[in-house]
Order: sequence, then structure tokens, then C-alpha cells
Amino acid sequence: MRSKIVTLLSDFGLRDPYVAEMKAVILSRCHEVEIVDISHEVAKFDIRMGAFILASATPYFPKGTVHVAVVDPGVGTKRRPIVVETERSCLVGPDNGLLALAAWKEGVENVFVIRNKRFVLPKVSKTFHGRDVFAPIAAHLAGGVAASELGEEIDDYAVPSFAKPRLKENSALGEVLHIDGFGNIITNIPSSILSELGVHEGDAVRVEMGKKATALKFCSTFGDVHLGDALTLVGSHDFLEISVNQSNAAERFKAKRGDSVCLRRRG
Amino acid sequence: MRSKIVTLLSDFGLRDPYVAEMKAVILSRCHEVEIVDISHEVAKFDIRMGAFILASATPYFPKGTVHVAVVDPGVGTKRRPIVVETERSCLVGPDNGLLALAAWKEGVENVFVIRNKRFVLPKVSKTFHGRDVFAPIAAHLAGGVAASELGEEIDDYAVPSFAKPRLKENSALGEVLHIDGFGNIITNIPSSILSELGVHEGDAVRVEMGKKATALKFCSTFGDVHLGDALTLVGSHDFLEISVNQSNAAERFKAKRGDSVCLRRRG
Amino acid sequence: MRSKIVTLLSDFGLRDPYVAEMKAVILSRCHEVEIVDISHEVAKFDIRMGAFILASATPYFPKGTVHVAVVDPGVGTKRRPIVVETERSCLVGPDNGLLALAAWKEGVENVFVIRNKRFVLPKVSKTFHGRDVFAPIAAHLAGGVAASELGEEIDDYAVPSFAKPRLKENSALGEVLHIDGFGNIITNIPSSILSELGVHEGDAVRVEMGKKATALKFCSTFGDVHLGDALTLVGSHDFLEISVNQSNAAERFKAKRGDSVCLRRRG
Repeated sequence: MRSKIVTLLSDFGLRDPYVAEMKAVILSRCHEVEIVDISHEVAKFDIRMGAFILASATPYFPKGTVHVAVVDPGVGTKRRPIVVETERSCLVGPDNGLLALAAWKEGVENVFVIRNKRFVLPKVSKTFHGRDVFAPIAAHLAGGVAASELGEEIDDYAVPSFAKPRLKENSALGEVLHIDGFGNIITNIPSSILSELGVHEGDAVRVEMGKKATALKFCSTFGDVHLGDALTLVGSHDFLEISVNQSNAAERFKAKRGDSVCLRRRG
Repeated sequence: MRSKIVTLLSDFGLRDPYVAEMKAVILSRCHEVEIVDISHEVAKFDIRMGAFILASATPYFPKGTVHVAVVDPGVGTKRRPIVVETERSCLVGPDNGLLALAAWKEGVENVFVIRNKRFVLPKVSKTFHGRDVFAPIAAHLAGGVAASELGEEIDDYAVPSFAKPRLKENSALGEVLHIDGFGNIITNIPSSILSELGVHEGDAVRVEMGKKATALKFCSTFGDVHLGDALTLVGSHDFLEISVNQSNAAERFKAKRGDSVCLRRRG
Repeated sequence: MRSKIVTLLSDFGLRDPYVAEMKAVILSRCHEVEIVDISHEVAKFDIRMGAFILASATPYFPKGTVHVAVVDPGVGTKRRPIVVETERSCLVGPDNGLLALAAWKEGVENVFVIRNKRFVLPKVSKTFHGRDVFAPIAAHLAGGVAASELGEEIDDYAVPSFAKPRLKENSALGEVLHIDGFGNIITNIPSSILSELGVHEGDAVRVEMGKKATALKFCSTFGDVHLGDALTLVGSHDFLEISVNQSNAAERFKAKRGDSVCLRRRG
């Protein structure tokens, strides 16, 4: 039998010792585990960006993976630590919306508050629940502890606004979730909304981001337009992206996370 | 039985191939080993920062872990390569103070100079002992070679100045060890000195950093003050920190590594 | 028997979920595998830099390692996905020169185009072959599939210009391959060309980079010159480097990747 996989996502960066401390806690508590980093370069306190990156990666991991995510501006306050059981995995983190996109994609089964002190570090600091709460919980889940042993079930967990793209009259409405390292502008509008709207490859579309509007072609890949030209496409994560072939779309359109996005067919 | 853990810390960054070369050397020499990165983003040649990050993470790893640390401005000169045996682990690196905080926290048992050419690469470059000396030594230690086989015992290893915070009259005196990714200012003053000084949660304190003095509250967590307010607290590594709730303390106080710090009770 | 090692190199960065998605795909398809990152901080679309970093690290990995490299400006176009079998390893990536330096160092045995759809993801996106093609291919190679099962053999694979340093009259001619994190300027001129030229440690040399010429000493290590002085040496990867002892050579000489380099003996 293979080792259980535990993934980690945070806004801790890779310079500080925080990520290594989480790994050390997990490895001290679970011998047969493989730890995989999803990202630790989420912008500080940016729950939306963390939620997007988490939800992008989780579908590709094997069933039974335990995902730990910590973007946690409310650490040390009353925000609850939770575990979400989905059809494919367990998601561990703060109840602030960070787990919502991944949970929703996989299908939520049960959500539990973490209360049982047996499964966290003997001394829980008020500033670093990644190490003191979430890491040991993940190790115990990977080691076979049932999520239901951790605390009571809840159904009033946080549902963030960025999980709600929509179709309105002749427009797809959403927002910018993320600017990737290539400068691609990734929105929260899934391909299903574009299909409903009747947009197909090759169509001319009009995209409003923030206060600017642009006429673009809806393409299947970057190479469908000339070097340096802008385009829209459905990216590899099934969300609408605005890109420039081998250049930086976010700089060209001065786009940033959280900007509103509206797409319409032209002509 | 579980695999041995070997951790790596350096100032090599993650862009260059150096870290991968060290891992390749270790994996070529030891089959049952799990490599964990502590950090490779230590500021270039900054032994103090490397020492802090190493000492922050080491206590959380299982007993028997081998820690390799390479921040090594003197590579190719006469500075000695050493192995420190502590009560919990082996520390491998240059004898320049880098291992000192971690060694001191764990309790030093024996220190050996690395001399035995059997356990290093056949051709040792003058510029990259991380790969040619420290990585293969770590692999052999993880594989069961005794530290005493590597070379003679020494007791004149380097003890750096930043390992000596102190209590003087009514003040705790130390220095800034590290600015973390959130802008928290981490000092070398441990909670034990604050207890001796009689400082308790809720107390008003006066902190001098460099040439500036500030009145602050001694808190237990960030949320004890309003968003954007400054505070002091004992961080998750048991050292005094100066922080700002959800903002960057180092920028606000223009603090940098090596600045002197003096804390006193007020009133 | 030990796990197979699969290494990853890309220009994806560590912020985005792309690297984690590749790892997830590999781990879902091959249970006994150890994934090691070489670098994901290759400059975007910089095939030369990627080729250098890959070729620096590959010689240190055990025989039988599978190396996946993705710097792929032509993704979604007709550029071919290939697997190179060498005497020591398998190299997987786009046929754009990225694999050339590593392949040439190890000795090319066979090159195959990836055609067999059985070994890639059921739905191949046009923008992310790292995840949809190269990762599953690597997993299958690590799991025992023969490279010859993937597609037909070819011999017209891309050979990039940066793989051709040369000796001309009394000069070694090449170019800047990479600026490392310490500011060392790494060229594509191997020590063998310097030997042919009759350059030995302690010699005075003249180095032209771009349009500037400098008189330098040919040294064996950084410490052979004073702090802050420039030097040339053969670095740990057997290529000529121009360095400054504990300072940044690339800034001092305003060097950048791709600059021409010419070295001559003086006097």
C-alpha cells in the first residue's frame, strides 16, 4: 500500500522556517506519509487567491489525500478550525472561505469543527495554528483517525462571495481570482457559463475588467493569435482567462485580483 | 522502520541547480532517506539569519534527524567543516557559528571536524562544499556511519555573539535576529529573560530598537490590539517579537537584522 | 529496491498551482516514486537558462532517473514532445533545445516522439502539456514503460546554438549561459577548452563580455583574491565563470544571459 499524501498551502513563503516546522510536526506523527507543497507563495492574507490555487491543484491528487491550507488572518481569534470531508479528500484549515472552492468542486460531505485536544500539539500558540493545530490534525487524518473524532459537525461554515460567478441577461459576470506568474488573468467564470451564453471558439467577445472594455477573440490556445496579441480562452483549470501570447496580460490591462469581469458576445 | 530524515538549509535560493545537486548526492548515497527543505532563502552570507531559521525548525523534527546547513562565505578557505552531535540530532555545516543556536538549544554532546576523505566526493571543488562535502557526509550519517568516524573531536568551535542575549539592571538586551515574511521583528531575547524581568501579558513596556524608542503593550496575540496597531509578544519560537496586527512592523519601525534591542517595563 | 526518482524543472515558479498539479499527476500514476525539484524559477521562456540548470544537476542523480523539463513557449503549436534516452537517464520535454545540454553531457542513445495517447491524460489541454503530457509520461517511464513504446524514433531533434562553445586562434569563444543567485557569470566554455588554450591557475587573462574587456586572474577559488575583487575560475559545473569575491559580478560587469564571451591569455 502506498503512503498517504498530505499537501500544504499557505501564505508563509519559503524563506521563513514556518513551512518546515509544519512538515516536521507531520513527519513526527505519521511515518508513512508523503508531503507535497501546493504553494506557499499565496499573497499574505489573500484568502481568494489561496482558495483558487488550492482548488486548481486538488482535483489531480489521488483519492484520500489530506489537504492542509493556512491563509489565516484571524489566527488567535474566534474563527474556527475545520475539517471538510469531500467525496475525494479531507480539507483542513481555518473556516474563512479558504477551503470553499476546493470543497465545492469535490462535493462537500461533512464539515467538522476541530475541538479534540488529543490531536493537536500539547501547547497551542496563538499565532501559529498551521504548526500547532492543522499540521498534527493532518498527520492524524493521514494516519487513520476519522474526521468525526475531531469535533462536532457543523453546517454554518463560511461561503465566500468569490465562489459565485453568474449569468445575467447576455453577460457572464465574475471577478479576477488570480494573476499567474505569466501574467495571465484568471477569472472565476467556468466554461459551463460560457457554454450557456453560447460562446464558441473563434467568436468575437467583449470583456470589461474594472472600468475598461476590450474586444477580443475567444481562442483555444495562445498560438491562435500573433505574438504579443491579447486573447481570451478557457485555461487548463476550466476558468475564463485573459492572456497575451508570450507576454503579460495583467500588465497590459492593469488588472488585479478582485476586479470585476463581464464578458459578452459581439456582433 | 521509517526513513531517516535529512533537512537542508542554505542561502543558495531555489533558482539555481545547487540545492538539487545536494539532494542528488544524498539520494545517490542513501536509499532510505527523506529530504526536507528548511529554507534556501537565507540572505546571502547571513550567518545570523541562517542560525535563527535553523534553530526555529530543528526542535520539531524527530529524534535522529540529520540537519545540513550551508551559509558559507569562507568556503575554500581554512574554515573547518564540522558535525555537531546533540541530544536529538546531528548538525552538519561550516564552523562559522551557523549551527550554534540550534546546537545550544538541543544540548551539544560532541563536535567533530570532518577529515575522513572516504565520506566526501572523490573530487572536492573549492567553491561548493554543500554538494561535495556536507551532502555526502549527511547521507553517510543517515545511513548509519558514526560521527566519530569522520575526524577528530574538537572543543574550540565558533560561538557567535548573537547567541548572547542578557538581563542588565532593569532591561532585557539583545538584537534583531530576523525579519520574517510578515514583517515581524524577531529578536534573540527568549521568554525566560522576560519572566526574570517580571514582564507579564498586558504590561506596558518600552522598546528601544536602534536609536528609536516606542511604548508598546506586551500581548499574547496579534488580535489583542486593533488592526494596524503595534504590539510586542513572545512568538511561536519563544523569542520576543515586535509586530503590527496584519501589517509590517519592520517597515513601520525601519528595523533590520543586527539592530540592538532593549526592553524595559514602564510605569 | 529503491523508488525511482523523477525530477522536475520548469519556468512555472512556485506561486502558482502548476508544479503541484504535475506532481499530483505523477503520484496518481506511479506509487513508488520520489519527486525532486531541480528548479521552477527558470526565467520565463528562457530555454538557454533552463538547459544550463538541467545539465548542471542531472549528472549527480542516480542512474535510471527520469528528468522532466518544461520551458515551453511553443506549447499548443506543432513543436514535438520528446523523450531522450541517454546512457544514464531519460529526459522528457519539448523538442526546443531545452534537453540538449543535459542529453549531450550524458550521451544520447535514442530520441522518441511522444505519440501514444495511452500514456497521456485523457483530455490534453493546449496550454499545459507539463501536466497533461510530460508528467504522465514520466510516471509511466518511472513505472517501467519503455521509451520505445511512446512513439517513433527520430534523429532530427533540435540542437541549439548555445551548445557550441569553441576555440578560435588564441581565444575561447562562447556566451553567458546563466547569472546565478550570487551574481556569478556562468559561461558555456568548459574547462577542456581552457586546457587546450594553455590557461593555468594563476595566469593573467583578458575577458571580453559584450563590448567590455577586463584583465583578470584565473584562480582556483574565490578566496584567491581580496574581498570585492573580480576573478575568473572554473566553477563547480566545469564551466568558466566570472566572479567577484563575496559580491555580485553580473552587476559590476553589467552582464546578462546571451552576451558573447571571449577569453585570451595575456602577456
